[in-house]
Amino acid sequence: MAKSSQLLDNEALRAYATYATVVLLKMMLMSLITAYFRITRKAFVNPEDVAASFGKGEGAKKYLRTDQDVERVRRGHLNDLENIVPFLGIGLLYALSGPELSTALMHFRIFAGSRIFHTLAYLIPLPQPGRGLSWAVGYAVTISMAYKVLKTVLYL
Amino acid sequence: MAKSSQLLDNEALRAYATYATVVLLKMMLMSLITAYFRITRKAFVNPEDVAASFGKGEGAKKYLRTDQDVERVRRGHLNDLENIVPFLGIGLLYALSGPELSTALMHFRIFAGSRIFHTLAYLIPLPQPGRGLSWAVGYAVTISMAYKVLKTVLYL
Amino acid sequence: MAKSSQLLDNEALRAYATYATVVLLKMMLMSLITAYFRITRKAFVNPEDVAASFGKGEGAKKYLRTDQDVERVRRGHLNDLENIVPFLGIGLLYALSGPELSTALMHFRIFAGSRIFHTLAYLIPLPQPGRGLSWAVGYAVTISMAYKVLKTVLYL
Repeated sequence: MAKSSQLLDNEALRAYATYATVVLLKMMLMSLITAYFRITRKAFVNPEDVAASFGKGEGAKKYLRTDQDVERVRRGHLNDLENIVPFLGIGLLYALSGPELSTALMHFRIFAGSRIFHTLAYLIPLPQPGRGLSWAVGYAVTISMAYKVLKTVLYL
Repeated sequence: MAKSSQLLDNEALRAYATYATVVLLKMMLMSLITAYFRITRKAFVNPEDVAASFGKGEGAKKYLRTDQDVERVRRGHLNDLENIVPFLGIGLLYALSGPELSTALMHFRIFAGSRIFHTLAYLIPLPQPGRGLSWAVGYAVTISMAYKVLKTVLYL
Repeated sequence: MAKSSQLLDNEALRAYATYATVVLLKMMLMSLITAYFRITRKAFVNPEDVAASFGKGEGAKKYLRTDQDVERVRRGHLNDLENIVPFLGIGLLYALSGPELSTALMHFRIFAGSRIFHTLAYLIPLPQPGRGLSWAVGYAVTISMAYKVLKTVLYL
């Protein structure tokens, strides 16, 4: 019987597991950064969140507002979702499609690097085209893996 | 040859399959709740959605508006995406990393419970820190699984 | 030892790999369409994006605005995320649960078709209930796969 734990004996799959976990942890960090800016900028969206710190009076209502820094982090978070979800799915299938280990590592490393740089470029913010290019690199890596998957498994 | 269906002979993976399906179904429920509030609050975003029920006249335009209850459900839905996507990826890798079955079940059960409670806390809404704590519990469980994955498979 | 690459000898899993990649590529296309509309409608959200093309003066500020067409694509993109993430997770578990190949293909094909039609219905836009029905079809297919997964693996 095939034990599922043997799956992770495969080096390409171990590399995928490592980098997928790293980019997901990076994405999860966006939640903490959003919370940090909401608290320091005093910009909340739910009345019950304001009530916990500032009570329910009229004075508390002024904290129900949008803040540029909070919105910036939230856009970065959504961009992560839009790009890391395809990486998770396509990257797993790519790792299962029997790639050369060195090629697989190159794909995973470039993707992870591009997303980390994208976040820095969004939050600092760096002048364009810094953020745009980092987005495009991650996008291209995902397309490259998708091409390999479809070439290997195509079954329509 | 390893048959893929044998994968699900593994109990930790069966537990993952069960809880991943449960939290995804819960997340999908948010779409129905959003639709319910859009219809009962008469708050739509696309002109063609209003036209289907109220025609295309000037009178119909007043239904193109945001509504607090609709926006609340949508925030809950987005929060699900932000937290359930990491669970899906990290949880699968965790289940493949050979955890103790009882430990794995504990992780999956707490995560599923925290997300169900989070939704209730958001929609009722419960006073803080109810929603914040339920979010933090699910977040911590995911970090704990990520730690186990990285400890087992690290391949940078 | 079970080689992970053997996983993709399974035809249901190959079919899943193909259709999952197709719907993810379709979802990724939304990013390009958003960028296209942002540039042609001159509607940006980050000051640094405007500065790259129009400088930093007061005149450039008028391009920091929302545009109906851009927002429409973004709603379609978010709807993809909300529906394709459940398909990715539940579809993989379904493919591993030993379905009849013809039944699995039917599920995957209808889902992919429903999401492609949904995007067209959103962007053209088609009159309702075109978009609503295409959404419902993909939703129902996912529920059907979830039912099969839970029936096969349930382990609470």
